[in-house]
Amino acid sequence: MKHILNRYFTYKNKELFCENVNLKSLAQKYKTPVYVYSKQAITDKINQYKRAFSSYETLICYAVKANPNLSILKIMAENDIGCDIVSGGELYKAKKAGIPSNRIVYAGVGKTDFEIEYAIRENILSFNIESEMELNVIDQIASKLRKKARVSIRVNPDVDPKTHPYISTGMKKSKFGIDIDQAIDVFIKASKLKNIEILGIHCHIGSQIMEIEPYIEAVEKTVKLIDTLKKKGINLTFFDIGGGLGIKYKPEDSPPSPEDFANAILPIVKHTKLKLIVEPGRSMIGEAGVLLTQVIFLKDKKEKHFIIVDTGMNDLVRPAMYNAYHHIVSVEEKDEKIVADIVGPICETGDFLALDREIENVQRGEYLAVMSVGAYGSSMSSNYNVRPRALELLVDNDKVKVIRERETYDYLAMPELIENK
Amino acid sequence: MKHILNRYFTYKNKELFCENVNLKSLAQKYKTPVYVYSKQAITDKINQYKRAFSSYETLICYAVKANPNLSILKIMAENDIGCDIVSGGELYKAKKAGIPSNRIVYAGVGKTDFEIEYAIRENILSFNIESEMELNVIDQIASKLRKKARVSIRVNPDVDPKTHPYISTGMKKSKFGIDIDQAIDVFIKASKLKNIEILGIHCHIGSQIMEIEPYIEAVEKTVKLIDTLKKKGINLTFFDIGGGLGIKYKPEDSPPSPEDFANAILPIVKHTKLKLIVEPGRSMIGEAGVLLTQVIFLKDKKEKHFIIVDTGMNDLVRPAMYNAYHHIVSVEEKDEKIVADIVGPICETGDFLALDREIENVQRGEYLAVMSVGAYGSSMSSNYNVRPRALELLVDNDKVKVIRERETYDYLAMPELIENK
Repeated sequence: MKHILNRYFTYKNKELFCENVNLKSLAQKYKTPVYVYSKQAITDKINQYKRAFSSYETLICYAVKANPNLSILKIMAENDIGCDIVSGGELYKAKKAGIPSNRIVYAGVGKTDFEIEYAIRENILSFNIESEMELNVIDQIASKLRKKARVSIRVNPDVDPKTHPYISTGMKKSKFGIDIDQAIDVFIKASKLKNIEILGIHCHIGSQIMEIEPYIEAVEKTVKLIDTLKKKGINLTFFDIGGGLGIKYKPEDSPPSPEDFANAILPIVKHTKLKLIVEPGRSMIGEAGVLLTQVIFLKDKKEKHFIIVDTGMNDLVRPAMYNAYHHIVSVEEKDEKIVADIVGPICETGDFLALDREIENVQRGEYLAVMSVGAYGSSMSSNYNVRPRALELLVDNDKVKVIRERETYDYLAMPELIENK
Repeated sequence: MKHILNRYFTYKNKELFCENVNLKSLAQKYKTPVYVYSKQAITDKINQYKRAFSSYETLICYAVKANPNLSILKIMAENDIGCDIVSGGELYKAKKAGIPSNRIVYAGVGKTDFEIEYAIRENILSFNIESEMELNVIDQIASKLRKKARVSIRVNPDVDPKTHPYISTGMKKSKFGIDIDQAIDVFIKASKLKNIEILGIHCHIGSQIMEIEPYIEAVEKTVKLIDTLKKKGINLTFFDIGGGLGIKYKPEDSPPSPEDFANAILPIVKHTKLKLIVEPGRSMIGEAGVLLTQVIFLKDKKEKHFIIVDTGMNDLVRPAMYNAYHHIVSVEEKDEKIVADIVGPICETGDFLALDREIENVQRGEYLAVMSVGAYGSSMSSNYNVRPRALELLVDNDKVKVIRERETYDYLAMPELIENK
């Protein structure tokens, strides 16, 4: 038995398994492209987070943006995990999956009036406020509804998380949060608004973070601010430290564990006595998913060898968008290797899964598994080139459940069939 | 009256119009984000193409990938324009819109067996073949169906189109086409396959091309190859020169017109006596569309001013994906200007429409128009952050038609509601 990145995906007798399900059989039965998730990988990660923070009152809110599949949200609900949402659509799905409102926090710089009203009516735990104008608008809408809106104010600690610039969110020049030196002023203004209840403080520095130090720096800065606020008579209930923990994309990656994260920040957080919120997304689900794809054609050009597969940037945009690395293996272990570009069917040169990658010498009709696609895989997928989005499967030991049907051409055309309206 | 990029979008009394429809009224009535297309802009461009190539037998095939909206495809059908497709989904939509099969050509490096069979059964004009293996597979599938498949072979002329690397497709290291020096060999092999009829030759060098010279170079190289093939007894019927003509994104851009394109290549093509196919996509539809968005919040940080709008990278991925420039104007003309980042509601720093852009000093609740989004706008859109995709409207003089309904939360969740199956 040989692990691929983690123990949920292993070769047994040279065939790749997710838990106790043979992935080649799955691909043949359900066709490709297909996303496959290991339920054990998800529940183990949930339990790791729970154990890591068990010594301190902590609400774990799964970042829905990483993967908003209803069945995955239901796993969160069954395990008493809350949700970190960023839109009305995510609120809708969280509620549909059975997440209680008092475990939902709502971040994002561009909440519309409709979304704010929807979230106030659903009585969510807290809005994470990103600007002074947002604060005033939420106050007005709450007033109209004759309700109080609970808010946390997101401060921007100006810390470099050392990740891709697109997913760094805690630096001064970013659109997110309120600069830490302007924050006291905003808290004081918030405390004077009639329909606002200040619940807490929020900071989130980015995503796919591989070092603990930026967290320590951000938390230390925020704790100082919490102390200052206390002296000014502003007492908080929650300290939301965000998420962003990295995952293993390459075999040699060693991201910090939830334990490393908790051990580093709990000693600093403790003296505030605030309840903690953590918002894992990628680290909760990222390594739990693979994307199975079939080799359609092989192509040799003098300069290059190409493996053309049946999944592309519409299913997985991360390689094109972030130049992201995803480990790719054959579902049947092979000794012979070649170096090739693994590319999709989309009519763009940017449509690649891997460039100049050492890979098993797979043949037409065989299958590849693209690893660590549980987060920001299906959630970012599109119908570019009028390609139906992939089927999604959840594996639980030796059982398999369809958790998202493959889109049909009819489904895609539905919003455009409006001739007779 | 003042044009914005082209004459279909103009300020009248300081208010922005699409043809004779006021865009602020549209935004208020239909809500934002909303894509708005000018029908006149589309039909004028169709007629420009027709006129430009009227002296030579030419089939104009619209590149569906640019914008596959059914109503837009119907405009093509009504004007006797064919389709250049790249997937089974695009074939489905082209047929549904009434495009006759003998005006459909099918390109793309990764056609699946299912898609090939579908296209053979629909009796399309031609497959544009991208590899030797594809040729053999199409022959086998045609044999199974007891049909002949018509093919054109895509040659890669190794020309630098001087555009974004992701949309350059005619260089040697790209996944597309067959290198021109290996092409004769493939044509000879194709001529020996029982279920293949060689129809023509295809070359396509990229997209958003702003100079004519790369076309001349590609066509000259291909014409030489056509002559050599003739000497070897391989006679073709069609010469498909692809598409890729650029459009105006910035006010100072001056892309070549269809006339410039025709005048440059027809003299070279003429002596082949082959029927011509051209495949305009972006140049047919790109400038015809705008994306209207509402200002949600303004945000001042010491380092930056942010205008936060209700559309993001899920609706328009081009700025994040290609660092693309889109011109943005207020729907109400204003004298005062500021410099700001115009950003969306998505939780990524990469979610921007424009950075450090000089823009009218718009206020919360006002509307902006993002220009030249007719191509690769809605076609690349996603539901990232569980955001329903935008409504789409077609303007015809003073009339407005919904051509794609706004997605609902229920529609998004539909493929995941499979509990009882």
